[in-house]
Amino acid sequence: MKLTILFGGASFEHEISIVSAITLKGKLSGFDLSFVFCDQDHKFYLIEASKMKATTFSRGEHKKMPQLSITNGSFSQKTMFSSVEHTGTVLNLIHGADGEDGTIASLLDFFSIKYIGPRTDASVFSYDKRYTKWLCVAKNIKSVEYEVLSSKEHTNINIPYPIIIKPARLGSSIGVSIVRNESELDYALDVAFEFDKTVIVEPFIEGVKEYNLAGFMAKGEVYFSIVEEPQKEEFLDFEKKYMDFSRSEKVLKAGISPELEVKLKRAFEKVYKNLFEGALIRCDFFVVDGKVLLNEINPIPGSMANYLFDDFKSSIELLSNSLPSNKRVKVNYEYIHSISQAKGK
Amino acid sequence: MKLTILFGGASFEHEISIVSAITLKGKLSGFDLSFVFCDQDHKFYLIEASKMKATTFSRGEHKKMPQLSITNGSFSQKTMFSSVEHTGTVLNLIHGADGEDGTIASLLDFFSIKYIGPRTDASVFSYDKRYTKWLCVAKNIKSVEYEVLSSKEHTNINIPYPIIIKPARLGSSIGVSIVRNESELDYALDVAFEFDKTVIVEPFIEGVKEYNLAGFMAKGEVYFSIVEEPQKEEFLDFEKKYMDFSRSEKVLKAGISPELEVKLKRAFEKVYKNLFEGALIRCDFFVVDGKVLLNEINPIPGSMANYLFDDFKSSIELLSNSLPSNKRVKVNYEYIHSISQAKGK
Repeated sequence: MKLTILFGGASFEHEISIVSAITLKGKLSGFDLSFVFCDQDHKFYLIEASKMKATTFSRGEHKKMPQLSITNGSFSQKTMFSSVEHTGTVLNLIHGADGEDGTIASLLDFFSIKYIGPRTDASVFSYDKRYTKWLCVAKNIKSVEYEVLSSKEHTNINIPYPIIIKPARLGSSIGVSIVRNESELDYALDVAFEFDKTVIVEPFIEGVKEYNLAGFMAKGEVYFSIVEEPQKEEFLDFEKKYMDFSRSEKVLKAGISPELEVKLKRAFEKVYKNLFEGALIRCDFFVVDGKVLLNEINPIPGSMANYLFDDFKSSIELLSNSLPSNKRVKVNYEYIHSISQAKGK
Repeated sequence: MKLTILFGGASFEHEISIVSAITLKGKLSGFDLSFVFCDQDHKFYLIEASKMKATTFSRGEHKKMPQLSITNGSFSQKTMFSSVEHTGTVLNLIHGADGEDGTIASLLDFFSIKYIGPRTDASVFSYDKRYTKWLCVAKNIKSVEYEVLSSKEHTNINIPYPIIIKPARLGSSIGVSIVRNESELDYALDVAFEFDKTVIVEPFIEGVKEYNLAGFMAKGEVYFSIVEEPQKEEFLDFEKKYMDFSRSEKVLKAGISPELEVKLKRAFEKVYKNLFEGALIRCDFFVVDGKVLLNEINPIPGSMANYLFDDFKSSIELLSNSLPSNKRVKVNYEYIHSISQAKGK
């Protein structure tokens, strides 16, 4: 199978996208893979498979590789007298800004390039944690209670301590703090507001049970990964999360009851259906008093949550054969013609 | 002032975007205007001002004009031995798909081109009428009750007749029907499902008072247009709406109480703030029993609702000097460096 891995992006998660791409190179061996890197200046480069190492990018060696431009239906590479078109399905593996905020989705849609990844609207609802909360209300999905802060101005927080403070639009635990009492609040807010002008406050639920479930829809069916109970020390800091993006070892299925597994799958379906078609997503859930609460949607999970799937390669192949198609409207100038005729010109 | 009018797009509203652009050419005379046309195949053309006539496009004459490609910071025009960069602020005047669904916003953001128009998230919340309802719930804005249908399968509609049937993602009254009794339902659904796979059902409120209010935010202040009570025969059909997009005559202020005017402005602000910054939008409200209900958000109103502003040119100038800026994240490869060092390579 032919597949182009698109990675990088101008985001705080640029580096983990590189790690993700390197991991997928290994997990999807046997596929006919191409690698397209989007640098922090939004220039695209075609990366030779043998050069898919972290240092290629940190040393700026990608700049010596062929530059690509995005055109109708392909990434185009200029050669001396003509150009080479790199066509085929893209796997959007740009984590965070650009990749998960709807920008890359729109770009690929506009240029009629098929892709695995969330569409623009799905991106908007998963990237900004406020909008995820709105989605939960609209789709009747339970989630943790929350408050929104939009400036460092002293705002009354009504949720009792301990609380968790998160920038609204970042993943990978960047800028996230647990605050146990008021004396820790100001510093935590300063950190979070470094990354976003909007901050989400939630209760920090000590020792909460956490379960991750990934999946995708193909041919009208939802295909689920196994359910994982992630190992965590309070919560993942960025460095641990970073390592997490290079995961490729299969994990053990969480020891949960069949009833809970069904509940998690039903919650996943509520999130996914009529919004995330075309994407393989991972939902992170909390379970409190037997109730399943949505914690977070990862519309482009680290290394595509390959370690959660029994047969990851077949899953990607199945999904890539069931991508939404964008039928483009045809214009017929009917009204302009009729008006011009009425005017006699 | 220098301004590039971007119009056209692959949408059912392609033609009215052309009409809008021609109208703005007149209303913004004195500005240093450029015209960039996006055709139904997503190719961009630079249109000479003197050729800004509807027939230029319906006859395909634009294809003889210089083709542009979108690049970092500009629309770029290839010449024999080099290229000309068309830089400067863009006014996104693509109505409907492409322009109002977040695609063009993402494209301009990705390529760091400043623009007047809704950002990606604002587009998603105004383009799809379901998401506008979710926004209303989240922001505590009153709107008309509704139901969602997602297939032609016989669904029970609980709202009593007469009802109004709308495709979720189209403006300009395309595909919209009033249904007075069950015998008219199937045909109305067939029409709506021609245009979208999701359909919104609302009660049709006979003789409801309707008011339009446009505005934008600049330098931290909301600037309002006058309030208009639109003339309507039941509701605007596409041909009337089409004419509507060429409106340039100033309209009369609606004869409403100062109290109602304040209520409309407060509702507008709730919709606009923290979402539509950078755009000039028009909100269409209903007033029922003294209560203000949001009917629709037009994030790129026909001919930019020029006829509602006392001084349209100054308004556009003010807005274009107060556009949100996208600060792009700088990547420092800190983690990759530290990991490479730890590995000793």
